[in-house]
Amino acid sequence: MNDDPWLSDEQQLAWRTFLEMTAALNARIERDLQQAAGMPHAYYLILAMLSEAPGWSMRMNQLADIVQASQSRLSHAVARLEDYGWVRREQAAGDKRGQLAILTDAGHTRLVEVAPSHAETVRSTMFDPLSDAQLVEFREICATVLTQMKDD
Amino acid sequence: MNDDPWLSDEQQLAWRTFLEMTAALNARIERDLQQAAGMPHAYYLILAMLSEAPGWSMRMNQLADIVQASQSRLSHAVARLEDYGWVRREQAAGDKRGQLAILTDAGHTRLVEVAPSHAETVRSTMFDPLSDAQLVEFREICATVLTQMKDD
Repeated sequence: MNDDPWLSDEQQLAWRTFLEMTAALNARIERDLQQAAGMPHAYYLILAMLSEAPGWSMRMNQLADIVQASQSRLSHAVARLEDYGWVRREQAAGDKRGQLAILTDAGHTRLVEVAPSHAETVRSTMFDPLSDAQLVEFREICATVLTQMKDD
Repeated sequence: MNDDPWLSDEQQLAWRTFLEMTAALNARIERDLQQAAGMPHAYYLILAMLSEAPGWSMRMNQLADIVQASQSRLSHAVARLEDYGWVRREQAAGDKRGQLAILTDAGHTRLVEVAPSHAETVRSTMFDPLSDAQLVEFREICATVLTQMKDD
C-alpha cells in the first residue's frame, strides 16, 4: 500500500467516466445482440474465440479466462451452446481432467450470420466517434495497462 | 446498417485489447475487494454511489442503471447489504411503486474502511502505468464515446 492511496481529481474523473462508458457500452452490446441474434455477448465471444483457435477447439479453462467467466458460468454457457448444436465438448487426448470445447459447422454458420451486425454495433458505438489519433491512443493505453497487469 | 460494417484491422486490434484489458481489470478488482473486504465490486459501487447521493439515498431503478445490474440482480445485492446492516430500504414518499435504498451509518463506516485499499488497486493498476497526457486522453476518449451513446 502506497502512503497516499487516493486517486487525484483527474484520475477519479477518468475512472468514473470509464466505468460509465463500459456500463453503457455493455448494455448496448447486450441489447443489440439479443435483438439481432437472441444471444448474450458471452455466447458470441465463445463462438468467436473458438473460430480463431486451431481446429476450432480450445480447453474449457482457457476459454473461461478469455470470456472472463467462472468455470461454472462457462459450463452453463457451453451447455446452452451445445443445446443449440453450435458447440460440442470432448475429452482432451492424454489429459483426463482436460475438456475441450469445439465449434461445430452449424456454430460457425451462426457466427458468420451474426458477425456483421455485431461489428456494426462496435464500430458505430466505440470507433465512429473517435479520430484516427484517438484510436491509436486508446489501443496504446489499453495495451499499457494490460502489460503491467501481466507483469505484476 | 452501414455498407461496410467490418472493423478495420486497427479497430479490431483496439477492440480486442480493450476487451482483454477490462476482463483483466475486473478480475483484479474483484480479487482485491474480496481479499480486503469480502465484497464484490457491485456492492462497493452501491455503497459508494449512495454515499455521494443527497441524504445517502437513491431510487432502486437509478441505482440499477449506475451499477449496471438488472432490477433482480440489484434487489439481490441490496438484500445482502441489508443483511449486513449497511443499507436499508424505504418506500419513496408519494410514489407507491418507488423504493429507496439508503446508506446506513454502519454502511458508511464500512465504505470508509474499504475505500483506501480499493483506491490503491485502481490507482496502481489503471493509472500508475499511464503518463499525464495519456490520463487526459483516456478520459476524453471515454467521454466522447459516452456522449455519443447518450445522443443516439
